[in-house]
Amino acid sequence: MRIKFPLMAIGLEVAMIVLYGLFVEYETDQSIQQFNISKQVHMEKFLDLYPLFQDVHVMIFVGFGFLMTFLKKYGFSSVGINLLIAALGLQWGTIAQGILHSHGQKVHIGIKNMINADFSTATVLISFGAVLGKISPIQMLIMTIIEIAVFAGNEYLVGEIFKASDIGASMTIHAFGAYFGLTVARILYRPGLRGGHDNEESVYHSDLFAMIGTLFLWIFWPSFNSAIAEAGDKQYLAIVNTYLSLAACVLTSYAFSSLVEHGGKLDMVHIQNATLAGGVAVGTCADMAIKPYGSMIIGSIAGIVSVIGFKFLTPLVATKLRIQDTCGVHNLHGLPGVIGGLASIVAIAMGASSTSTMVNQAFALGASIGTAIVGGLITGVILLLPLWEQPSDWDCYNDSVYWEFPRLRDHDNRFHEYHNHLEHEI
Amino acid sequence: MRIKFPLMAIGLEVAMIVLYGLFVEYETDQSIQQFNISKQVHMEKFLDLYPLFQDVHVMIFVGFGFLMTFLKKYGFSSVGINLLIAALGLQWGTIAQGILHSHGQKVHIGIKNMINADFSTATVLISFGAVLGKISPIQMLIMTIIEIAVFAGNEYLVGEIFKASDIGASMTIHAFGAYFGLTVARILYRPGLRGGHDNEESVYHSDLFAMIGTLFLWIFWPSFNSAIAEAGDKQYLAIVNTYLSLAACVLTSYAFSSLVEHGGKLDMVHIQNATLAGGVAVGTCADMAIKPYGSMIIGSIAGIVSVIGFKFLTPLVATKLRIQDTCGVHNLHGLPGVIGGLASIVAIAMGASSTSTMVNQAFALGASIGTAIVGGLITGVILLLPLWEQPSDWDCYNDSVYWEFPRLRDHDNRFHEYHNHLEHEI
Amino acid sequence: MRIKFPLMAIGLEVAMIVLYGLFVEYETDQSIQQFNISKQVHMEKFLDLYPLFQDVHVMIFVGFGFLMTFLKKYGFSSVGINLLIAALGLQWGTIAQGILHSHGQKVHIGIKNMINADFSTATVLISFGAVLGKISPIQMLIMTIIEIAVFAGNEYLVGEIFKASDIGASMTIHAFGAYFGLTVARILYRPGLRGGHDNEESVYHSDLFAMIGTLFLWIFWPSFNSAIAEAGDKQYLAIVNTYLSLAACVLTSYAFSSLVEHGGKLDMVHIQNATLAGGVAVGTCADMAIKPYGSMIIGSIAGIVSVIGFKFLTPLVATKLRIQDTCGVHNLHGLPGVIGGLASIVAIAMGASSTSTMVNQAFALGASIGTAIVGGLITGVILLLPLWEQPSDWDCYNDSVYWEFPRLRDHDNRFHEYHNHLEHEI
Repeated sequence: MRIKFPLMAIGLEVAMIVLYGLFVEYETDQSIQQFNISKQVHMEKFLDLYPLFQDVHVMIFVGFGFLMTFLKKYGFSSVGINLLIAALGLQWGTIAQGILHSHGQKVHIGIKNMINADFSTATVLISFGAVLGKISPIQMLIMTIIEIAVFAGNEYLVGEIFKASDIGASMTIHAFGAYFGLTVARILYRPGLRGGHDNEESVYHSDLFAMIGTLFLWIFWPSFNSAIAEAGDKQYLAIVNTYLSLAACVLTSYAFSSLVEHGGKLDMVHIQNATLAGGVAVGTCADMAIKPYGSMIIGSIAGIVSVIGFKFLTPLVATKLRIQDTCGVHNLHGLPGVIGGLASIVAIAMGASSTSTMVNQAFALGASIGTAIVGGLITGVILLLPLWEQPSDWDCYNDSVYWEFPRLRDHDNRFHEYHNHLEHEI
Repeated sequence: MRIKFPLMAIGLEVAMIVLYGLFVEYETDQSIQQFNISKQVHMEKFLDLYPLFQDVHVMIFVGFGFLMTFLKKYGFSSVGINLLIAALGLQWGTIAQGILHSHGQKVHIGIKNMINADFSTATVLISFGAVLGKISPIQMLIMTIIEIAVFAGNEYLVGEIFKASDIGASMTIHAFGAYFGLTVARILYRPGLRGGHDNEESVYHSDLFAMIGTLFLWIFWPSFNSAIAEAGDKQYLAIVNTYLSLAACVLTSYAFSSLVEHGGKLDMVHIQNATLAGGVAVGTCADMAIKPYGSMIIGSIAGIVSVIGFKFLTPLVATKLRIQDTCGVHNLHGLPGVIGGLASIVAIAMGASSTSTMVNQAFALGASIGTAIVGGLITGVILLLPLWEQPSDWDCYNDSVYWEFPRLRDHDNRFHEYHNHLEHEI
Repeated sequence: MRIKFPLMAIGLEVAMIVLYGLFVEYETDQSIQQFNISKQVHMEKFLDLYPLFQDVHVMIFVGFGFLMTFLKKYGFSSVGINLLIAALGLQWGTIAQGILHSHGQKVHIGIKNMINADFSTATVLISFGAVLGKISPIQMLIMTIIEIAVFAGNEYLVGEIFKASDIGASMTIHAFGAYFGLTVARILYRPGLRGGHDNEESVYHSDLFAMIGTLFLWIFWPSFNSAIAEAGDKQYLAIVNTYLSLAACVLTSYAFSSLVEHGGKLDMVHIQNATLAGGVAVGTCADMAIKPYGSMIIGSIAGIVSVIGFKFLTPLVATKLRIQDTCGVHNLHGLPGVIGGLASIVAIAMGASSTSTMVNQAFALGASIGTAIVGGLITGVILLLPLWEQPSDWDCYNDSVYWEFPRLRDHDNRFHEYHNHLEHEI
């Protein structure tokens, strides 16, 4: 960390300032004309959507940030690196998406760019979950820049070329983010951690901190899926469908967690994650008329698949495919994202929407996964370069590698003592 | 938990999906006609109220969930079972309230149904506080189904038959939820816990987690009391009155906590709970023109009554009435709810509102408490059946009865050690 | 605490109720006429701004409250006294600001008063950070009353006499609150704490609790800076500029934290605080057309200055100026507030705004700092009176001085044990 990390962070911020100086402007009377509404109405719409933007903002910074604090000694890094890469990601996402959609013209910042910038950031945070504890802050900065560029490209492909429908971004954010992160984790496979790591576990309070993340994600997910939906009917549908899917998902997550665990007990990993799978899986068809009970069926299935994934698939993926998925993003974002894409094909087949076709949806799903894997491969190889201060196996999942603990003294501090103890053992 | 819990959870979700398939629809052009406004205006109103709905949603899931994490070893269950029963409750509440109000016709989901569904859920969560730590998840599922049905019946009686005014639901939610829960706690009285239980206490960090709940409840209470108020003047009044009542309540809670405690110290139990009593007590007359200082008087009284209740009444209720009220819901919801009903009678007598009469308000208060006690009796008796895996006295207030701790190892884990230690002692 | 604290709290609440009875009214048809809009439009505007008010409300109670929980044994007091003085402050702020602005007429409560009341409260909470752990709850009540009166006077001077522009209140809230608090800390200087105090440090979980505060402050800061901005263009600018300044500030804070710390590590103190400096520094010119990259430059500089302040200035200020600044408010609010004032002068010089002049901005900055120092001096001297139960050096930063721990028993409770241990040592 000595000098590379600060230099890269400063360099990236300087680059952002230059890019914003060149390409980004406030909304102007001209830029508003494209919406065919008066400036006053446009500004009112800004304020109408602002609460939904803030809901999404809470999801990105508090939701994702605290969801990942479940590790007993990696809370600072989880919530801290989350903040760092989200702050970078939203600046870069505005540029990357804006340039593509404005065809090289100036980008005019409005509420939709701000929401979309948060979305591009979400993609990176999902991938972060797959490699959590195993890569350095510098590596995360590099991954943020590459992944958002690839994400913006795939999103353009899906939305503008295939004209596919993906309002809650099950495919373009969740499946994409998961498979991108899993591919990077595959490239960075650590044989030394096959048997697990002492620090890769939670303690009582770290699991409670993680529930802060879970709950804010759960509560605001209807805002995520509806924030950029067409005002009126479609936005209404996106809110109601997501709300119902999530509620149903909770019941099946709890049921299956109890079914698969020893003695019918519940597992915090499932409660923290699988309860959210309903929000992911209903994303693509959130603004379609899939009926209230349709949303609930999608949510129920997502909860079941997610719990089963955590219990049976994650260990297999780790041993057979050599992918160590720290947060289990495959079960929360990968599988439910694929379910979301498939659900949209079924929904269109049943006449719930005519904004896209079954074929286009299938292309969109395939493109999202394919681009993610290719992007993840390239990123993984770049991150392998012995330049980025990747932590040793021993230093994984350990805040003390990246964080000063100046205010900690010996008494009353088990964490510090334990760390010293480990260092003496070496 | 082995098999009954997952079967019941799955069965309930399947039942919900069937009920939604039969009875619940999106809003249609026809269903909107009843409001005498155009569809576009209706959809705009949806988005106008959506931030208030989200505030209430945060109160239900984060507010109630974390408020109950004060117990040192019951945080997983507090926040976890809260999520489970709230997710079930909002699905079932939509049906139970909707069928009654639509007189057996289809229920059309709009923002008001969603807010009302959260309200019905709040009622169960209040009762949950009275029995926290002493009943199993299966018992909570059963209680959720029965209580919401009774709640919807009482709410219909109060609002449609008595035409009483109860905008912030001091009577129909708070008093009802409290006396329902207390009656259940009475039926399930545990003589073995007369002397207290080692786990029925907080530790330093669990009290801080609980403050997350307190603060979000406190902040968003004006949204709770105003969410379904008539747009315009009444909604304005409900927000302002609740805001002022809560602020005043904080000052008297702190003052009386210090007055009644040894050496003038403050007690976290009072700060976590009594500071919220002002929101409860002002509920019924929140949308009446009770004057700003009137709200502050109501809030001040509520804070005082609540602290005194915690200090002197709760021990008496436990020993004399044999009601073990884990969270002290009688002091946060019961007494302040009754104050709310009485305050509305005074307010109407003083001409602050003409939407209801003093007699109708008195009927509403009596009906809410009466129905709650009858409903609680029936529920308590059902929960007594030796089918529902009620925990033994020993297992009360203990997460490890319901939760796997697979990620906990021996080192660095006092909780686990302590639990083992207890088990060896037996 | 025995009797003075409860008497003062009750006395203050009674005084508030009397003042509200005399001076505060609901909005009336007449009071709305001044806005030249119909009552219906006015009420719609209330609801439009309500989500921004709630964002600010979360910042005040959760943001400031949890930000200060970083101390290992002072979490109850941090979040608890924060709630107490904020609840008092918003009641008193409405009166103090209202009387001045209505020139002695009745104050009519609307959404802007409510937002402004939260702002006046924020000022006290900033000062609270400078003296955190070292003064008693009674002293904080006194400081709240005096500081808000002085704040309202200075705000009137800056806004109505100088007609200066300070939409996000970098000068009138942040610089004012910081220098007021620092002056009080100077007067209350404790030579006995020159060598530090065992309790003036964080532990692992207390730093995570503090991050809850940081993140909610960070997320909702655009609402803070835009809540009372002119609807339309200016509000849009205030949101976008603050959003970009904060994002840029994160990158430079991380970079400089790593640069100045041993071995390139990150310091939680910087991450919790310096990442917010961008919100402070962009405040004054938030609603000016300073260009997107202009905001990012302001944010970048604020992050750098704040980290450097924490690392090099705070120790100097403590030893040379004898100001013990517990939370480092000089680095989060003082210096960035001054940067905000200076930035507005540069912005006006560059033509980004014509609502104020460079000279008026300079006067505003000078007045804010000057009034703060004079107010702080007077307050400090009053707080020195041996009436207010100021804690001894030994009792600083220690919750057990003000809080009962009735639910804590011997086993499983290091905090209590440690405290007993200390008491035996005396």
